[in-house]
Amino acid sequence: MDFKKYIRDVEDFPKKGIVFKDITPLLQNNLAIKAVSQELLESIGDQEVNKVVGMESRGFFFAPWLATRLNAGFVPVRKAGKLPFNKISESYALEYGEDTLEMHADGILKGEKVVIHDDVLATGGTASAVCRLVEKLGGEIVQCNFLIELDFLKGREQLEEYNVRSLLHY
Amino acid sequence: MDFKKYIRDVEDFPKKGIVFKDITPLLQNNLAIKAVSQELLESIGDQEVNKVVGMESRGFFFAPWLATRLNAGFVPVRKAGKLPFNKISESYALEYGEDTLEMHADGILKGEKVVIHDDVLATGGTASAVCRLVEKLGGEIVQCNFLIELDFLKGREQLEEYNVRSLLHY
Repeated sequence: MDFKKYIRDVEDFPKKGIVFKDITPLLQNNLAIKAVSQELLESIGDQEVNKVVGMESRGFFFAPWLATRLNAGFVPVRKAGKLPFNKISESYALEYGEDTLEMHADGILKGEKVVIHDDVLATGGTASAVCRLVEKLGGEIVQCNFLIELDFLKGREQLEEYNVRSLLHY
Repeated sequence: MDFKKYIRDVEDFPKKGIVFKDITPLLQNNLAIKAVSQELLESIGDQEVNKVVGMESRGFFFAPWLATRLNAGFVPVRKAGKLPFNKISESYALEYGEDTLEMHADGILKGEKVVIHDDVLATGGTASAVCRLVEKLGGEIVQCNFLIELDFLKGREQLEEYNVRSLLHY
């Protein structure tokens, strides 16, 4: 299936000069959402996975689905202040300023094999912060998994020590 | 499976006096997340469903999964300013002030049968705003589906014209 025909370019979102890849047409098509989840699963392959970590908010669309299919648990990473229990945090640089991500401290057990998933790999700032969170808790990252990779932003260079897989490239 | 033993009470979150139902222990357990998704699916039954609508952010955990299993599409409802394309919006009252939810205008087609899903039914303000969004676009709500219902907040009274199903009650 040609998934790119279900991905809509929206100009000047979230701010002027940025072309946003809108995946909602893909999600709302019953055949496309089923096929794309299956291909994401296949991109992980048959390696052992104990936890799938998904990033707020669009990483939540497929990460829990992938977890159930891999017989793994799902762990959300959220923006600061959203998780209620004992947590660890990592900050990462934005164009101006910085942002903080949090994960529950009991989300990953030492030695667990972890896939991190997000919808888009852009500059790699979010994904590398999530990798640091997982590794702080002793998890081993077996794959960084994305639906879309914006190759021209070179996020992959931030993740060069990891196995990075993206279904679609722009 | 006794799902309640995987749901953690966190006192004074998000603010003093509130006991928050934390579902992350359930999500991170590989057997529990699989079993609970299956029970949510069974609570919808074998009626025809064209779209599953999930509310940001915790409604995103199960709504796309349910969509793929029901051969339906998934439509996200998000907080104001997060969706990039043409959208419709609904405001609802909070304890102090109000909040606004948005949905893409092409998310639901006229006459489509829709399940709305969220993790928790509390006062019903969010869910009834989402029902209004769906109906503005001509969708027909066949079920309001929740993982948890906080019975003492009487959210069900806000949804009395709909078929409301919740897996767990407190």
